[in-house]
Amino acid sequence: MPNWLKKRALLTPNRQAIIYKGETITFTQLYQAAYEMAGKLTSKGVKNKQFTAVLLQNHLDSAVILLALQLLGVRAVILNNRLTADELIWQIRDSNSVFLLSEERFLEKLSNISDSLPDLPIFKKEELAETPIEGPLIIDEIELDDICTIMYTSGTTGYPKGVIQTYGNHWWSATGSALNLGLHENDCWLCTVPLFHISGYSILMKSIIYGMKIVLHERFDVNETLNDIRKEQVTIMSVVSTTLTMILDYLQEERLPKSFRCMLLGGGPASLPLLERCVKKDIPVFQTYGMTETSSQIVTLSPEDSFRKLGSAGKPLFPSQLKIMQDGREAMANEPGEIVVKGPNVTPGYLNREKDNRKDFQDGWLHTGDIGYVDEDDFLFVLDRRSDLIISGGENIYPAEIEGVLTSHSAIKDAGVIGRQDDKWGEIPVAFLVKKAPVSETDIMDFCKEKLAKYKIPKKIYFIDEIPRNASKKILRRELRKLINE
Amino acid sequence: MPNWLKKRALLTPNRQAIIYKGETITFTQLYQAAYEMAGKLTSKGVKNKQFTAVLLQNHLDSAVILLALQLLGVRAVILNNRLTADELIWQIRDSNSVFLLSEERFLEKLSNISDSLPDLPIFKKEELAETPIEGPLIIDEIELDDICTIMYTSGTTGYPKGVIQTYGNHWWSATGSALNLGLHENDCWLCTVPLFHISGYSILMKSIIYGMKIVLHERFDVNETLNDIRKEQVTIMSVVSTTLTMILDYLQEERLPKSFRCMLLGGGPASLPLLERCVKKDIPVFQTYGMTETSSQIVTLSPEDSFRKLGSAGKPLFPSQLKIMQDGREAMANEPGEIVVKGPNVTPGYLNREKDNRKDFQDGWLHTGDIGYVDEDDFLFVLDRRSDLIISGGENIYPAEIEGVLTSHSAIKDAGVIGRQDDKWGEIPVAFLVKKAPVSETDIMDFCKEKLAKYKIPKKIYFIDEIPRNASKKILRRELRKLINE
Repeated sequence: MPNWLKKRALLTPNRQAIIYKGETITFTQLYQAAYEMAGKLTSKGVKNKQFTAVLLQNHLDSAVILLALQLLGVRAVILNNRLTADELIWQIRDSNSVFLLSEERFLEKLSNISDSLPDLPIFKKEELAETPIEGPLIIDEIELDDICTIMYTSGTTGYPKGVIQTYGNHWWSATGSALNLGLHENDCWLCTVPLFHISGYSILMKSIIYGMKIVLHERFDVNETLNDIRKEQVTIMSVVSTTLTMILDYLQEERLPKSFRCMLLGGGPASLPLLERCVKKDIPVFQTYGMTETSSQIVTLSPEDSFRKLGSAGKPLFPSQLKIMQDGREAMANEPGEIVVKGPNVTPGYLNREKDNRKDFQDGWLHTGDIGYVDEDDFLFVLDRRSDLIISGGENIYPAEIEGVLTSHSAIKDAGVIGRQDDKWGEIPVAFLVKKAPVSETDIMDFCKEKLAKYKIPKKIYFIDEIPRNASKKILRRELRKLINE
Repeated sequence: MPNWLKKRALLTPNRQAIIYKGETITFTQLYQAAYEMAGKLTSKGVKNKQFTAVLLQNHLDSAVILLALQLLGVRAVILNNRLTADELIWQIRDSNSVFLLSEERFLEKLSNISDSLPDLPIFKKEELAETPIEGPLIIDEIELDDICTIMYTSGTTGYPKGVIQTYGNHWWSATGSALNLGLHENDCWLCTVPLFHISGYSILMKSIIYGMKIVLHERFDVNETLNDIRKEQVTIMSVVSTTLTMILDYLQEERLPKSFRCMLLGGGPASLPLLERCVKKDIPVFQTYGMTETSSQIVTLSPEDSFRKLGSAGKPLFPSQLKIMQDGREAMANEPGEIVVKGPNVTPGYLNREKDNRKDFQDGWLHTGDIGYVDEDDFLFVLDRRSDLIISGGENIYPAEIEGVLTSHSAIKDAGVIGRQDDKWGEIPVAFLVKKAPVSETDIMDFCKEKLAKYKIPKKIYFIDEIPRNASKKILRRELRKLINE
């Protein structure tokens, strides 16, 4: 295939590509900027097929750097900028990255990294502005099997693993999504999720492959989000439950513009009350299921099923497949088991992890470790991550379900549920709550008794100021566990 | 990848798939019908990877048969039903087809085929209706490199060559087109072109891959076309200059509905006056360039350029590439030369034609033999299809093939065939003959009727003393053209 960005600039040179803080850049300008950046990186010695770490925040320049690396065929090890220096050093070492591209903003972390890795050349984008342009030797054709990016998964236990994402993975993810969501001339995707996560990076890839405008924000801000949805006529946005809730709260009696056609909801199962609020406000929510290993969505609810199958993540995208495995056999309809996926958007494996790859991939099928079931109409319902599963007296308890109930209480802003060791039951669920109005533990218990089977009701409630979440807004349950043990 | 039709039926079971003569079939029903047909074919002994010839007219049943062959992984040698028995026999032999699937309508041709190929099992769709269902063993996964279809085109040598089209070729053609034309939930493609041509077959593939409704007609009829565009809210239609002209004439002062968004115009360069008439009537024409070897369009004008670059075929689709070669080097902007293309939608080669493949494909680039130039903005302008190619009502006619038939007549010493301008068909073939024994125009016409499909028969015959040839004995067709114009 031809080089993507170069091809896109050739096809639709004057279409808007990225809007960032009021600045608009066309595909030609984006290509020129990435081309110049590729020339600067070349003069710094960055070369095709090298692993190069990238530590950036969401910014137009960051998009340019990520695309420049693609022009050169450099493999980008994209680091999560919320990690500590120690965590970053671990990933840079693990991936054998030979350069680190970053920016002034992370000076303190960079200084710590430099102390531990004195031989690692670190280039800050601010100094690259002054670097002369050399060459560059950009790749004319892309091999779909080549490694494009490495992203480390948060990993609930043990050390993170680098997920290999090939150009083909990104390509099939983008086209598989278009075959489901459709592709309109006026489409514009709002990106408030980090570019260092697959949720954000995949939006950048869609921009190039579709020839679609994106609006890039440094971070999620509900006021800016609503402003830009209206001003830039955004048609699609990627959200998680937390951000969607904030949008709903902010909207109050208002509605989104008619041109807005898709709220792509990922990052774990959503609660039914939240989805019902969206239905009431005519917000077109498309629940989706995906992960770094599937280069973003792999299962998404189709437009025509979004109301009928509320709470489902939908069906696997056209190029992909799904099955539920239970005790080594394929589960029946409605029987929960491990979610196992396959498709050209699925990673070929983890970087330098032969053993994990053998365990997690069997005949091309990735064993996700997540729990779900497929109903009689082939719709996937994701129950929870296996590691989060609470087993109490032989009964399975899925925290997301309890959290959904808790956050539907008018006085509760946010909730996190984990299992606590218990002599009698093995584990019992306990809840961490953030209030938005005065409420007592007894009130909550009474509320739960109405909504939940007895064994699911949290046995203890802790009121805290904030639920710890990672950059993609997933609850950090291990942080909650620490709170109990303190 | 998962089996396409099965996957589509799983994803959007109740969406409308095909409308044929007022009858509507959903994707589930289409899958069930194709599944049953696959069972019938299985009980007749048709098996995975076999080459099986197909001689059908546009009909819902034909679509079902073509899809049943895909379910089984059978390679369909799709025959042009306008060909004579002799022409069909040649293609069946050349492809080593082990079965022929057809219908009562072609009884006379089938009888002739049977006389020449007594060992070839021929199954008519009418008798398949009574055949018991066995198995069938349908393929769960599609390998993109596997052969899906074979379609014959003629070369300069006169004998047709079987173009191999893989599943990947069809896939990339469909997705490449969607990335350019967009993909709307309400899209509906009108197919009045033959399913045995890539123009029609590719619409069927798009229906399955996109989950899109198509309206299938037996043949082009301007009245039915306009009726269905309105009644079924058709949004896209594939046309050639001849059919587009008929639509324009029929419309008179009327306009197409606003929902109609794309008139995809292929089958040779269109005249500027025709395109200007479309502009006046607000008909959104997308000029396109493609061939059997590129599994339909490879170059198409984007929406935003359709007026600014009137007459251009546009730019190569996202996954594809194009260059113009002149004297062994790449031509400059605006310099005409041979059109050379590359991409995952381009055939891997001709069936059993090692020599032709070496000549026509160099480093993955297909030398089309067509002449064109690329302007300073990278837009392709097709000047002429292969210097000798005659395009008549969207059908390709290769003079060498007709000349071969004519010179096989005992009274003909030499023959030359060229295209003559025609208001209705674009071009029609006319023949120049040198006699070696007395023979009348009627004798020749009768002789041709046995050997050549109707559209290939010369519409006028000129007897002359000598066919002008150059030193290497190649016919000087421009000299023949002068003779008509004198």
